Order: sequence, then C-alpha cells, then structure tokens
Amino acid sequence: MDLDLLRTLVIGNATRIVLCSLDGLGGLPRPGTAKSELATARIPNLHALAARSACGLIRHVGPGITPGSGPGHLGLFGYDPLRYVVGRGVLEALGIDFDLRPGDVAARGNFCSVDGDGLITDRRAGRIQTELCNRLVERLRQIRLKGVEVLVEPVREHRFVLVLRGAGLSGRVSETDPQALGVPPLAALALVPEAETTAAFVNRFVEAARPLLKDAAPANMLLLRGFDRQPDLPRLPEVFGLKAAAIAAYPMYRGLARLVGMEVLKTGSTFADEVTTLREHWSAYDFFFLHYKDTDKAGEDGDFDGKVAALERFDAHLPDILALRPDVLVVSGDHATPSVLKGHGWQPVPALIWSAYCGADPVRHFTERACAAGTLGLLAAQDLMPLVMANALRLTKFGA
Amino acid sequence: MDLDLLRTLVIGNATRIVLCSLDGLGGLPRPGTAKSELATARIPNLHALAARSACGLIRHVGPGITPGSGPGHLGLFGYDPLRYVVGRGVLEALGIDFDLRPGDVAARGNFCSVDGDGLITDRRAGRIQTELCNRLVERLRQIRLKGVEVLVEPVREHRFVLVLRGAGLSGRVSETDPQALGVPPLAALALVPEAETTAAFVNRFVEAARPLLKDAAPANMLLLRGFDRQPDLPRLPEVFGLKAAAIAAYPMYRGLARLVGMEVLKTGSTFADEVTTLREHWSAYDFFFLHYKDTDKAGEDGDFDGKVAALERFDAHLPDILALRPDVLVVSGDHATPSVLKGHGWQPVPALIWSAYCGADPVRHFTERACAAGTLGLLAAQDLMPLVMANALRLTKFGA
Repeated sequence: MDLDLLRTLVIGNATRIVLCSLDGLGGLPRPGTAKSELATARIPNLHALAARSACGLIRHVGPGITPGSGPGHLGLFGYDPLRYVVGRGVLEALGIDFDLRPGDVAARGNFCSVDGDGLITDRRAGRIQTELCNRLVERLRQIRLKGVEVLVEPVREHRFVLVLRGAGLSGRVSETDPQALGVPPLAALALVPEAETTAAFVNRFVEAARPLLKDAAPANMLLLRGFDRQPDLPRLPEVFGLKAAAIAAYPMYRGLARLVGMEVLKTGSTFADEVTTLREHWSAYDFFFLHYKDTDKAGEDGDFDGKVAALERFDAHLPDILALRPDVLVVSGDHATPSVLKGHGWQPVPALIWSAYCGADPVRHFTERACAAGTLGLLAAQDLMPLVMANALRLTKFGA
Repeated sequence: MDLDLLRTLVIGNATRIVLCSLDGLGGLPRPGTAKSELATARIPNLHALAARSACGLIRHVGPGITPGSGPGHLGLFGYDPLRYVVGRGVLEALGIDFDLRPGDVAARGNFCSVDGDGLITDRRAGRIQTELCNRLVERLRQIRLKGVEVLVEPVREHRFVLVLRGAGLSGRVSETDPQALGVPPLAALALVPEAETTAAFVNRFVEAARPLLKDAAPANMLLLRGFDRQPDLPRLPEVFGLKAAAIAAYPMYRGLARLVGMEVLKTGSTFADEVTTLREHWSAYDFFFLHYKDTDKAGEDGDFDGKVAALERFDAHLPDILALRPDVLVVSGDHATPSVLKGHGWQPVPALIWSAYCGADPVRHFTERACAAGTLGLLAAQDLMPLVMANALRLTKFGA
C-alpha cells in the first residue's frame, strides 16, 4: 500500500499496539534434524498466542534477498525497503546512537596504515584497540572546515563515523577507500554535480587529517566510504496517526525508530528492562516498538542452542506483555538469522497478529513451517502495518 | 526483483547450480481420476528429493496466461517475460538453431498459393513436403538486396525463416499475411518511422521472390509475419556472475539459452546424452541449464500415459544428476502441458529447490497438489533465480 493513500484512511482510536521485533527471528533446521530453532525451543506462551492469532510469513525485500537490519526494520514499520533506502553511513551513525539530523551526510571511516609513499598497507590498521581509536578521533575533532560542521565519533577498533552538517550537502560522493593494498587512498569525487561542495569538504577533511595522524602508525591514515544523506522518510506518527514509542536496548534500532519519527524511550540493557519501560509508559503512547536482540546475536554466532535459549527467554517475558492487555500484539522479526548460516538469511520470517478481530487460523505453533500455512500467507513486510492498523480499528474503509 | 538491483548483490562463490527444466511439466488429472500425470507416475527419486527440498508452484506470466516456450524459459532464467519479450520471428529462427546475431530482424515465412490474379487461395500451400520447401528456399537464396544481407532457411512443410542482417534494421514492420483468402498479400508497412528502410527491404524481397516462385504452384507465393529484432537482453552470466552452460537436445532451447548469453554445450539427441554432457563439463561451469523435452512432446500429443512414462524416464536419471553433488538443484518447467489440453496450459508449474539451506517444507510428493502447500508458495517464475542464487550463497545482503 502506498503510504499517502494509507494516510487518508487513518482514523483515531484509543487502541494500543505492541510490535515485538525479535531480531533475526527466523531460522533453519539444524543439520540432521528437521527442527529449526523455533521448532526446538520450549516456547509455550508463543505457541498459545499463535493459536489465538492470525499467522503467516513476512518477506522484507524480495525472494532470495537477505535484508540488512535497516531494510528489515523499515519493512516492519510499514515502509517499502526498496523505495525508502537507508544507506550505510547513516546506519553506522545510528548504530552508535548518533543524533543524526535531516540533511546530515554520514560516512563510515576506517583508520588504515600507509607506508612512506602513502600507499595503503593495511585497510584496517591492524584492527587497533578501541581505546586508541578514541584518542585518534579526539585528534580528528580538531579539524575545522569553513562552511560545514565536522563531527567525528569513534565506533570500535579501527572504525569511526564522520558526519558533515550544513546546508546543501549531498551523499552522492565516491569512496576514498580503494579496497586494495599498495595504492594510495582515492580522492572523493562528486557523483552528481550537486555533490561538488560535499566532495570538496571531504577532501579537505582528509588533507587536514593526514598531518594529525602522521605519527600514529599503524593508524596513520584514514579511509571513508558509504557516504549517505539522512533520508527524508515520511514520519510514522503522521502517516499512521500514532503516538509511537521505541524501546530498544541497542542503539541501531533506536536510531532506525528515530529515523521514522518515533520517540525513543530510555531503557536498560536487558529485555526485562525493556518490558519494565513498556509498563511504565503504557498509558502515554498508542504504539510501542519493542526490540529483542538476543535471537540475532546467537544466530550470528552460529549458536543454535543459544538461539533456542534466547527464544525461550523471550517466551518467558510474553505473559508480562500480555498482562498489559494490548489491543493488538504483533510478534515478528526484521529478517531470519539461521544459526546454520551464521548470518542474516533470505528466508521469510514468522509473524503473528493477535487482536479481538484477527480471525485466528488453524496454526497452533509459532514455527516457520506452521506459520507457512497461516491465513496471513506470505506477506510483504510493509503490508503488516496496514493489517495492524486495521486490527486496531484505526483505518476507515476505502471508497464509500 | 529488478535485475539491476540484483546485479549489485551478487558475490562470488564456488557453488554449483543445476536447473532442470522439464518442458511442459505441469499437468491435469485424467478425466474420471483425481490424478495428474505427476500424481500417476512412479517417480520415487523426485518425491524423495521434494521431501528434502523447498517446494512451490511457479507462474511464468500471469493468472490464466499460457506461456509459450520463450516466456516460459525467460522466466526460469530470471527475466520477467512481460518486460523482456522475444518475438515470434526470433523464436522461429532459434527453433532451427539459426545463429541469430544482435540487430538481426527475423520473420516467419509461409509458402502460399495464389491464383492468376494474385489472390490467396491457400495460406499454407497445401502444406507442401519439407523437401519441396528446401528446394524453394534454394531459389529464394538467389535474392540479393543492396544494403542488407538476406538469409533464408527452411523450417518444415510450408514454413521457412527470413532473416535480414545489417545496420539500423527494425522489427516494427507489419505482416504481409492478410490472414484471409481471396485477397492479395499485403505490402509490408513501417509501424514506426525508423522501420521505413526495413519495410522497403521486405517489399523488395517479396517482389524479387514473385518471379522465382511463379511456376511453383501450389507454393507460388509467400507470406511473412512475426517480424522481430533480436532483443537486447541482459546477459545472464553478467547479471548473476555465473559461468553458465546450456545442455539441450532441441534447438529452440539452445537458442533461448544463447539469447541470454549462456554457452551452449554440444550434446546428443537423448536425455542420457545430456546427462553425460553435464558430467563431462561438471568442473568447467557454475550453472547448468538442463532441458528435458519428452514431457512436453507427450502432453502436446494428448498422450497421458506417454507423459507419465516421460516423467518416469526423467526420474530414473535423477540419481545420476544428484551423484554430481550440485550445491543447488532446481526441478521445474517452462509451462504446463496437460495431456487433456493437448497443448500448453496456464496452470502454475511445480518447482523444487534443494540446497543445504533450502529449509525443507512438509511437502513429500512432487505433484501439483502437494507443491501448492510448499513454502515457496505461488511464485513468479523470475523469482526462482534470486532464490537459487541465495541458496548458492551467491548474494550478499541488501542494506547493512
């Protein structure tokens, strides 16, 4: 659905929605068994909820396409991830909770090693300690460029973020990282005429950094890539008429929520903290995005049993969420992270929508296989939000 | 998925893919039974493979639309058949293994009968013997036109192919076949201004042919239709980063594979020959398109038992293909050819994808009905290739 059309159908209501994103939720059977992580886990509360819900599978980008966390969450938030693209520099900035503003251009930075002739010998500067990264970033913060504000933030090891803030900046600037050794860093080039000024700022930044890093071998130079302007996304509270809050222990997901205009609530570092935060703010918002990271972390590590345990921990918290009596409760994820892949996967992700009007289907288990037979079918991720809104009785009919 | 986007996600890998196209695979129950050809056949190897695979149904063009062999295979190769159109003249030329080159314009030709006034009395010249067709084509080969190369090839009975080769030709030329009796052949007209030259060449060819055929009644004139320029398709090896080979005993399918840039391997006339060719070239390619014709032939003849037998013969070869240990194995087809229809059908076609990461679903039989419940769902044919690429771990994620 086109967001502009959807917006015209939104009506007010007092209903309350909780969208639980279990990061990397979907999985694959462990070799030698027919059981995925979800099919292995003891998750009685999720199964019972699935039995009362409409179930299905959601696909975030397209068949065979593995979504990154950005497209994965944009899909869950109702945005077509192929239309609304969040670039790498912006994601990197969001990942460290950087307060990115409209018009900002962000890039991923690496400290690297160069020899006496300025040729790259290590693109990651031997993965220096984060502590050294912090100190070198302090040096880079001395750089002042006339006409633009320069912001530098450490990430970890050799990685940092560069943000340029000012009027008329463009993200269409080529990378200075040649992705090769034995050659010098590249000059940044404008990929479109409007990016000339930005490319010039980038090159001036690099030239100013060179003497500051000269004595810092192995981190005696830097490389920049993934230049991106913060995308101008429709604001979720306006499109859907929701007072929306995000609760996420990890910065990347807070950042993605902020990007679509949600309020980010302060919370602790555990999912128990997140649920407490949810309870504390229950009456103040219509919509809560609740992010659960552990499933993805275990999947990325290839830790099948760890992912099973993470699912079981989430399951144990589910009664606390249900006790708040949401009108609509959604459980799904931003992408699959099958433990056997040790990374994101292209597989569609189980999804359930519970409400008084969800039209529960015969699905009795919250697993990939069982959900494949649900009445939601195989759904584009961005189609979930209109269904959620409908279940919250927050959409009027189309056509008289 | 847009091929240009897909292309940006392709990564290298050493994995090997086999795509088996069983021509006209899908069928319908024989009247009085509930069993299609697939449900009747003893195909234990296909059923066992389906049980280990992700299954579904693929649709090549749209609901209710019966695909020709061109769109059917383009879909399997990952191309949206509604966007990438291969015209009839081009297909006719591919069907006789004609070495069509970029820019060539091809047309289907018929020898026809005209009376003393030049009015058509039989559009197919009484379906003359192929041997006579060959001799008349020899006469047409005497025709020389200044500014363009003229190539004429017999097909069979009254049918031949005309190919014009030269710079600046267009396929947007009207047919000379009025599709009616008692009227003269039409002059070819340019349907767009750029086709003026081509239309003039066509008319000069027809005028030059007239005296050459004058004494050859009943084949004393010719009709031309289906003018087409060879389409400029994205090359499969470049889009998907695959060293791709086609193995097909029938010329049409070799031609379609050549059209998307696959290398065509020399093979014999049976499927056993094709499997031998596959084995001999196993280490030299990443991707093999393996075509099996018998299923379609029996279906076109309305021979239900013959199609059942053809499926069983394919099944017997499956272990030889599996013995090569492909990383991804796909079995599907270019369209249905239900025996009860004695021709192509619009029905979606069973498909299975096997890989270590396919996420096998509960489907236990490779039949139309069983596959309808598979996790691939009902898939556009062109969405199969991205899934195949994902299963071959040859696509990186979209968005960081």
